[in-house]
Amino acid sequence: MSTARLKLGVPKGSLQEATIDLFSRAGWKITLGPRSYVPAIDDPEIECLLVRAQEMARYVQSGALDAGITGHDWVVETGAEVDELAELVYAKQRLARVRWVLAVPEDSPIREARHLEGKTIATEVVGLTRRYLERYGVSARVEFSWGATEVKVPQLADAIVEVTETGSSLRANRLRIVDTVLESATVFIMNRSAACDSWRREKAESLILMLQGAIDAASKVGLLLNVRRDDLPSVLQVLPALKNPTISTLSDPDWVAVNTIIEEAVVRQLLPKLKAARAQGIVEYPLNKIVL
Amino acid sequence: MSTARLKLGVPKGSLQEATIDLFSRAGWKITLGPRSYVPAIDDPEIECLLVRAQEMARYVQSGALDAGITGHDWVVETGAEVDELAELVYAKQRLARVRWVLAVPEDSPIREARHLEGKTIATEVVGLTRRYLERYGVSARVEFSWGATEVKVPQLADAIVEVTETGSSLRANRLRIVDTVLESATVFIMNRSAACDSWRREKAESLILMLQGAIDAASKVGLLLNVRRDDLPSVLQVLPALKNPTISTLSDPDWVAVNTIIEEAVVRQLLPKLKAARAQGIVEYPLNKIVL
Amino acid sequence: MSTARLKLGVPKGSLQEATIDLFSRAGWKITLGPRSYVPAIDDPEIECLLVRAQEMARYVQSGALDAGITGHDWVVETGAEVDELAELVYAKQRLARVRWVLAVPEDSPIREARHLEGKTIATEVVGLTRRYLERYGVSARVEFSWGATEVKVPQLADAIVEVTETGSSLRANRLRIVDTVLESATVFIMNRSAACDSWRREKAESLILMLQGAIDAASKVGLLLNVRRDDLPSVLQVLPALKNPTISTLSDPDWVAVNTIIEEAVVRQLLPKLKAARAQGIVEYPLNKIVL
Amino acid sequence: MSTARLKLGVPKGSLQEATIDLFSRAGWKITLGPRSYVPAIDDPEIECLLVRAQEMARYVQSGALDAGITGHDWVVETGAEVDELAELVYAKQRLARVRWVLAVPEDSPIREARHLEGKTIATEVVGLTRRYLERYGVSARVEFSWGATEVKVPQLADAIVEVTETGSSLRANRLRIVDTVLESATVFIMNRSAACDSWRREKAESLILMLQGAIDAASKVGLLLNVRRDDLPSVLQVLPALKNPTISTLSDPDWVAVNTIIEEAVVRQLLPKLKAARAQGIVEYPLNKIVL
Amino acid sequence: MSTARLKLGVPKGSLQEATIDLFSRAGWKITLGPRSYVPAIDDPEIECLLVRAQEMARYVQSGALDAGITGHDWVVETGAEVDELAELVYAKQRLARVRWVLAVPEDSPIREARHLEGKTIATEVVGLTRRYLERYGVSARVEFSWGATEVKVPQLADAIVEVTETGSSLRANRLRIVDTVLESATVFIMNRSAACDSWRREKAESLILMLQGAIDAASKVGLLLNVRRDDLPSVLQVLPALKNPTISTLSDPDWVAVNTIIEEAVVRQLLPKLKAARAQGIVEYPLNKIVL
Amino acid sequence: MSTARLKLGVPKGSLQEATIDLFSRAGWKITLGPRSYVPAIDDPEIECLLVRAQEMARYVQSGALDAGITGHDWVVETGAEVDELAELVYAKQRLARVRWVLAVPEDSPIREARHLEGKTIATEVVGLTRRYLERYGVSARVEFSWGATEVKVPQLADAIVEVTETGSSLRANRLRIVDTVLESATVFIMNRSAACDSWRREKAESLILMLQGAIDAASKVGLLLNVRRDDLPSVLQVLPALKNPTISTLSDPDWVAVNTIIEEAVVRQLLPKLKAARAQGIVEYPLNKIVL
Repeated sequence: MSTARLKLGVPKGSLQEATIDLFSRAGWKITLGPRSYVPAIDDPEIECLLVRAQEMARYVQSGALDAGITGHDWVVETGAEVDELAELVYAKQRLARVRWVLAVPEDSPIREARHLEGKTIATEVVGLTRRYLERYGVSARVEFSWGATEVKVPQLADAIVEVTETGSSLRANRLRIVDTVLESATVFIMNRSAACDSWRREKAESLILMLQGAIDAASKVGLLLNVRRDDLPSVLQVLPALKNPTISTLSDPDWVAVNTIIEEAVVRQLLPKLKAARAQGIVEYPLNKIVL
Repeated sequence: MSTARLKLGVPKGSLQEATIDLFSRAGWKITLGPRSYVPAIDDPEIECLLVRAQEMARYVQSGALDAGITGHDWVVETGAEVDELAELVYAKQRLARVRWVLAVPEDSPIREARHLEGKTIATEVVGLTRRYLERYGVSARVEFSWGATEVKVPQLADAIVEVTETGSSLRANRLRIVDTVLESATVFIMNRSAACDSWRREKAESLILMLQGAIDAASKVGLLLNVRRDDLPSVLQVLPALKNPTISTLSDPDWVAVNTIIEEAVVRQLLPKLKAARAQGIVEYPLNKIVL
Repeated sequence: MSTARLKLGVPKGSLQEATIDLFSRAGWKITLGPRSYVPAIDDPEIECLLVRAQEMARYVQSGALDAGITGHDWVVETGAEVDELAELVYAKQRLARVRWVLAVPEDSPIREARHLEGKTIATEVVGLTRRYLERYGVSARVEFSWGATEVKVPQLADAIVEVTETGSSLRANRLRIVDTVLESATVFIMNRSAACDSWRREKAESLILMLQGAIDAASKVGLLLNVRRDDLPSVLQVLPALKNPTISTLSDPDWVAVNTIIEEAVVRQLLPKLKAARAQGIVEYPLNKIVL
Repeated sequence: MSTARLKLGVPKGSLQEATIDLFSRAGWKITLGPRSYVPAIDDPEIECLLVRAQEMARYVQSGALDAGITGHDWVVETGAEVDELAELVYAKQRLARVRWVLAVPEDSPIREARHLEGKTIATEVVGLTRRYLERYGVSARVEFSWGATEVKVPQLADAIVEVTETGSSLRANRLRIVDTVLESATVFIMNRSAACDSWRREKAESLILMLQGAIDAASKVGLLLNVRRDDLPSVLQVLPALKNPTISTLSDPDWVAVNTIIEEAVVRQLLPKLKAARAQGIVEYPLNKIVL
Repeated sequence: MSTARLKLGVPKGSLQEATIDLFSRAGWKITLGPRSYVPAIDDPEIECLLVRAQEMARYVQSGALDAGITGHDWVVETGAEVDELAELVYAKQRLARVRWVLAVPEDSPIREARHLEGKTIATEVVGLTRRYLERYGVSARVEFSWGATEVKVPQLADAIVEVTETGSSLRANRLRIVDTVLESATVFIMNRSAACDSWRREKAESLILMLQGAIDAASKVGLLLNVRRDDLPSVLQVLPALKNPTISTLSDPDWVAVNTIIEEAVVRQLLPKLKAARAQGIVEYPLNKIVL
Repeated sequence: MSTARLKLGVPKGSLQEATIDLFSRAGWKITLGPRSYVPAIDDPEIECLLVRAQEMARYVQSGALDAGITGHDWVVETGAEVDELAELVYAKQRLARVRWVLAVPEDSPIREARHLEGKTIATEVVGLTRRYLERYGVSARVEFSWGATEVKVPQLADAIVEVTETGSSLRANRLRIVDTVLESATVFIMNRSAACDSWRREKAESLILMLQGAIDAASKVGLLLNVRRDDLPSVLQVLPALKNPTISTLSDPDWVAVNTIIEEAVVRQLLPKLKAARAQGIVEYPLNKIVL
C-alpha cells in the first residue's frame, strides 16, 4: 500500500522565500526544481504545490489541497469554507501582520466611508471592499486593480483599498489612511474533511508544532550564567518570569549555573543588570527551535 | 495659455521596456523617475502614464487617457469602446503577435470545445473565455487565474486559456493546443471623442508615423553598390521590387551607384547573387527610420 | 630616436566611463589594465594617466601632464594657470554642464549671500566658496566636506555649496537654491609651455577635432530622400539651413537625391513635413562622426 | 630551524568552495589571494596548493604534495599509488557520494555491457572505462570528452560513462543508466613515504579529526530539555541510543536536565514524542563540531 | 516629557557595513532608509547619523553629535578635543588595526624622514604628515590627495603617507615602507560635556558593554564535554586558564560535565589533546555574546 | 522530399559568444534553447551543434558534422584530415590570432628546446608538444594538464606549452617565452566528402562570404564628403588606395560627392588631412557588411 500524503499548498510570490526558509528551520527542506510549481520536499508524507496566496483558499476548499499557508485576508476575500488551524506570525519577517486600508490622496475631501458614495475605488480585493461598503450602506464603483494600486489615485480612481504593513509605501505616495477594512496574518488552513481524517490532522499538527518552534526560536536566545548561591535571588529577580530558568548544581557547592531562554530584544537591557547583580561568565547563544 | 497635451498610456510590465525602446528609436525619450507611474517624456505636448496593458482600454474609454498602447486582446476582453488607430508590430521584439489558445494536458481526452462541458477552465481572460464557450453552447466553470496558469492543469483545472507566441512554454509544460480563442497584436488605441479633436488626432497620427518608421527600419538595411551601366539590368533583376532603388550618376559615366532599402533577412541570399551579377563595392549599412 | 608623446590626463571617477566611451567613438581605444591608473591607449603618441578631476589642473600646471580633461570648476578652484583649449560638451551625457550653487534647507531664513554672516558652510570647493563670500564682504566658516554634502544641512551646517545638474538631488533633499556660485563644463586643458610646442599643440588639436566630431555626431543623424525636381524648392524650405544639403543627380533626370545632416531631436517634426512636401524614400541613418 | 610543513592539495573547481567552507568550520581559514593557486592558510605548519581533482593523485604520488583531497574515482582513474586515509562525506554538500555510470539514450538497444561491442563511448575517465570493458571482454572505441559528455549521444557517441549524483541531469537529457562503473566519495589521500613520517602523519590525522568533527556537527544539533525524575525513563526511551545523553542534577531535586546530540533530520519526529513524554523547556541549538 | 536621546555618529563608508553588523550582533538593528544619512535604529533612546569617519571627531567636538565611532587616526588628524572611551577592535573584521606609513617607490633613494627635504608628499592626512615632518625638522611640500594615493609615486609625488593594514596593497604597487607615522584602531569617542551628563554617559557605557560582548563572542566558542571525575585534573590542565570552566554534577556521580569558553583559534590544537585526556562527548557550539 | 541541411559545428566555450555575435552580424540568428547543445538557427538549411573547439575537427573528420568553426591548433593537435576552407580573423575580437608557446619560469635555466631533455612539460596539447620535441630530438615527459597550466611551474612541472594572445597572462605569472610551437587562428573546416558535394560546398561558401563580409565591416567605416571639382585631386591623394572611391555628380556642377570605405583605425589621421585638403561636410557612418 502506498504512503499516505498530505497535499500542502505553499504560497508562491512574496511569502514564498520566507516560507521555504521557515520550513528549513523547522526541519523540512523544500527544493524548487524544473517543474517549479511542484517543489520537492524531503518528507515522503508531504506533497507540495506552489499556489498563489490569492488562490490558496479556493483550492483547499475544493480538496485539490489538504492544507495550505496563505493570508487570512484571502480566506475572507474568497469566502472559502476552510479551517484556520493556526496563525503563523513569522517573527523577523516581512508580512507578519498586515492591514487592508481604505486610502485617499492626502488632500482628498474623503474623511470617512460614507463620503465614498458615487466614487470609484480601485483594489485587488473587490469582495472585501464591497462588503465593507455594504456595512456602511454606501454605493460606489469598485474596480479590480491588476497591481500598482497606490498610484491610481487621483488620476484613475478616487480611493483605493490596499494592503500595508507599516504605511510607508502609502506615505511615499502621499496617501492618507481613512479606515482599516481588515487586519490579517499568515494562517495555516485545512480542508474541512481532511481535518476530520486523523492521520492528516495529526500530520498537520506536528507540522504546525515545528513551524511554531522555529518561529519562536527566531526571536529568542539562550543565556547561560554562573552565580554564587547567595546572589541567586537578586539575579532571578532581574530575569523575566517567562518560564522558570534551569538552575544546575555545580561541583563547587557555593555556585550554581543558570540557563534560560529570553527574548533577544531584551538582552541589551538585561546584561548590564545581570552584571550589576554579580552574575559571572554570562554567555548568550543562538537557538534553532524551542518548545516550552 | 497652457500647452495642449495628449494624455498617453504606456503599457507597464512585459511590453514596457520594448515600448520605451521603440519610442527612443522613434525620437521620444521616456524616462522613468521617482514617481514611477508618471514617466517623463521630452515632448511638452505629451503626458505619459504607465498603465497595465489589462487596464489600458478601460482608462482610454473613460477619457482618463486620450490614447494608449495595449494588446488587441485586452480591448476585446474589457469590451471597451475605443478606436484602434494602428497595429504596431514591433519588429524583432517579443510579443509581436500572440494567440490566446485553449490548451489541455497532452493526454487529456478533450479534443474540441464541446468536450469542455462541465469542466473547469483557468484563465486570465474570463470574458474572452466565456464568450468563446457561448459560441459553442458549452457550459463550463471559468476561474480567474492570478498567473502561472499553464501549471494549473491537471491538478487544479481541466483546461486553460492562455497566451502564447511560439507555443514553446506550452510544450515545455506538456500541454496540447485544442483551439485558438483569439489572435492579437499590439495596437494604438484612442478615446473616441479625443479622436474627433483635430489637434489630438494629428498629434496621435504623427506619433504613429514615427513609431512605424522606427518599426520598419528595425528589420531593414540600406544597400549601396556600384555597377557598370551595362550590368545594371541584371543587377536590378536581382533586387526585390519593393520600391525602385535610387540610381545615381557618377563622375565616371560608365558607372552608376545604386542605393536601396531591403529586408535584412534577405541580404544573405541577395549578396551572393549581386556579386554574381558583377555589382562592386557592396556595402550594407544600418538604418534608424524609414518612410517610403 | 624615441617617439614624442603627449602626456594626457583622463578624469578618474564620475566622468571616466563617459570619457573612455567618447574616446572610443573618436577613434582611440583606452583600456584599463592591472596598473589601473596608467590605462593603455592604442596610439603610441599618447601616454594616458587616470587622475581625479579635482587634481587634474594642478598636475597639468606643474607639467607632470601636458594636457588633461577636467571640469572648468576645478581649474578655477585650484587657481591653476593652464590653457583651456576647448569646451567638450559631451552630448547625451551626464555632466554636460553643471552649476555650483549655494543651497539651504527649504525653510531656512537665508535668502541671499549676505545672510551667511557668521554661518557654517560645508563644501568640496573651499576656495570657490571663500572667493564668493569675499565678493559679498561676508565672513563665514567654510568647512571642507568629504562627500554627501547635501545631507549636512541643517544638522551639521547652515548652508552648502554643491554641484548640481538638474537640481533634482537638491530637491529630493528639500534644499532651496539661493545663488549660483559658478557655471562649469568639461574642458580640455593644456600646460602653457606644452601648448607652445608645435608638435604637442598639433597633436592636442587633432585630438580635439576628433572628439568634437564624435560629440557632434552623437546628437545628429543623416537623412536621405528622393524628390522630384519640381518639388525640390518646397522640400528644401522644410530642411533646416544648418548647412546646404547635398543634392545628387540621378539616372532619371526628373529626380534628385538629397542627403543632409540634421539634429536627431528635430526629425520627429521634420518627417511629417517632408512627407507632406512629397519627398519619397525617406531614410534616417546613424552617424559616427561629422566635421562640417 | 625552519618549520616543518605539510604540503596539502586542495581541489580546484566544483569541490573547491565546499572544501574551503569545510576547512573554515574545522578551524582553518583558507584565503585565495592574487596568486590564486597558492592560497594562504592560517597555519604555519600547512602549505596549500590548489590542484584539479583529476590531477591530485598524480602529484601526491610523485611527492610534489604530501597529502590532498580528491575523489576516489580519480585515484582509480590515474592508477596512482597513494594511501586513502579517510573518506570525507561532506554532509549537506553536493558531491557527497557519486557514481560513474554507463548511460545510453532512452531508446537505445544497448541493455548491458556486451552490447557495446564496436561502439563509440565518450567519457572523461578513459582509463576506468577501458578497464570496465576489459572486465566484460568487450572491444569498443573510448573517446576522451572535454566536457558536456551527456549531450554527445546519440549524434557523436553511442554511449557515455559519466558521473552522477541523483541521476537528474541524465534523466533531463533522456538517458538511461545501463550499469554502474564505479562508486566514489571524497577521500583524504597521502603520499606513501610522507605517511611514514611521524610528524606529517600526526598532522594529517589531527586535520582529519577536525574535518570529521565539523562534518559530523553539520548534520546534528544539540537538544536541551528539563524533565521530572519520574518521567525520565519514558523520555530516555524516546531518545535515539546514539550516545548516552548527559543528565545533570538541578537545584530542584525533583527535576533533571538532559543534554543530547541528535541527527537534525529526526528532530521533527522526536519533538512531538518528547512533548508527549512530558519533557519541558525543549531547546534545539546549533553545533560547530562534535567529537563523541 | 520627551525621551532623552544619545546622538550617535556611525561611520559611513569602509567601516559602515562592519559597524552595522556589529550593532546587530550587539542587539541594535540599524536600518538604512530613504534619507540615507539618518538611519533608523530600534532604540528610542538613540538617534543615529551617518558621518564620514574623517569628519566624525569634528562633529563630536562641536556637540552636533554626543558620541561616535571613528578611527583614532582621524581624531589626531583633526586635533579634535573629544574623549576616547573605548577601543573597539572588531574581531574578524578588516581594519581592526591600521598604520599610516611613509612609503616610497621600491627603488627610491629615500631611506628615512630627513631625505624628504624639498620633496613632494601626497596624502589624505595633511595634518599628521606636517606634524611628522616637524618632528624631524624637515621642510617638504605636502599635497592633499583625493584618493588612489598609492599610484601617485613616482610620476606625481616623491613619497606618500598612506594607511595600510597588511601592507599588501603597497607591495602590489611596488612601494617600500620607510617609517610608521601613526598606529590607529577604531575608537568610541564622546563629546566632553556629554560625557559629564550621567544619563548619556551610562547609555554610552552600556552600549560599549554590549558591543564588546559581541566583539568578544565573535572570536570565541563554547565547549561542552563530559569527563570521569578521575580524569578531571588532566582535562583541566589542558584547558586554557582564561576563566575557570563551569563544572556541573551529573546524575551519574562518577561523571561531571565541563562547559567552557575558549578562543576559536585554539580549538584545533585543544581537541586532539582533550580526546587524549579521555574527555567524551566533546561539543563545540557558537556564541552570540559573552560578558565574563 | 525533405530539405538538404548543412550540419555545422559551432565552438562551445571561449569562442562561443563571439561566434554567435558574428553569425548575427552576418545575417543568421543562433538561439540557445533548453537543449543547449543544439541551438536553433533561423535557416532551415543549416543544423547547428555546439561542440568544444578541441573536439570539432574529430567530429568533422568522422562526418558527424559537415563543417565547423574551430582553431587551426586543434586541427593540428588532433591530426584530423579535414579541409580548412577559410581563416576567419574575427576583427575586434579576442582570440583573433594566438600562439602556443613553450614557457618557463623567468629564472629557469631552460633557454632553448634542447634544454628540456629529461624534464616534465605540462600542456593541454600533448600531441603538438611531442611533435615539437621530436623535431629537436629531445626526450621529455609530457603531461596532460586539465587547465590552469601556467601556474604549474615550477612546483608541478619544469615547463609548459600554453596558448597566448598578448603574453600578458604569462608575464603576470612571471613566465618567460622560450619558443613558439604553433601559430593559430580561427578556421572554417569542412569534411572532405561533404566538400565534394556541390550543394553543401556552395552553402558553406555563401556562409563564408557573409561571415567575411561582417568581419570586414567591423573594422571599417563609410566616409562621405563633398569637394569642389578643383580640389578633387588633392583630396583623392589623401585617401588610401584600397579601392577607388565612388564619386557622384551633384546638381551643382562645381561640386562632387565622394563616398568611400576606409579602416576605422586610420580615420583619426585622415580627417585632419581631408579638412586641410578642403573637403566639406565630412561624415563617418557605420557599416554592417562589405563585399568589395
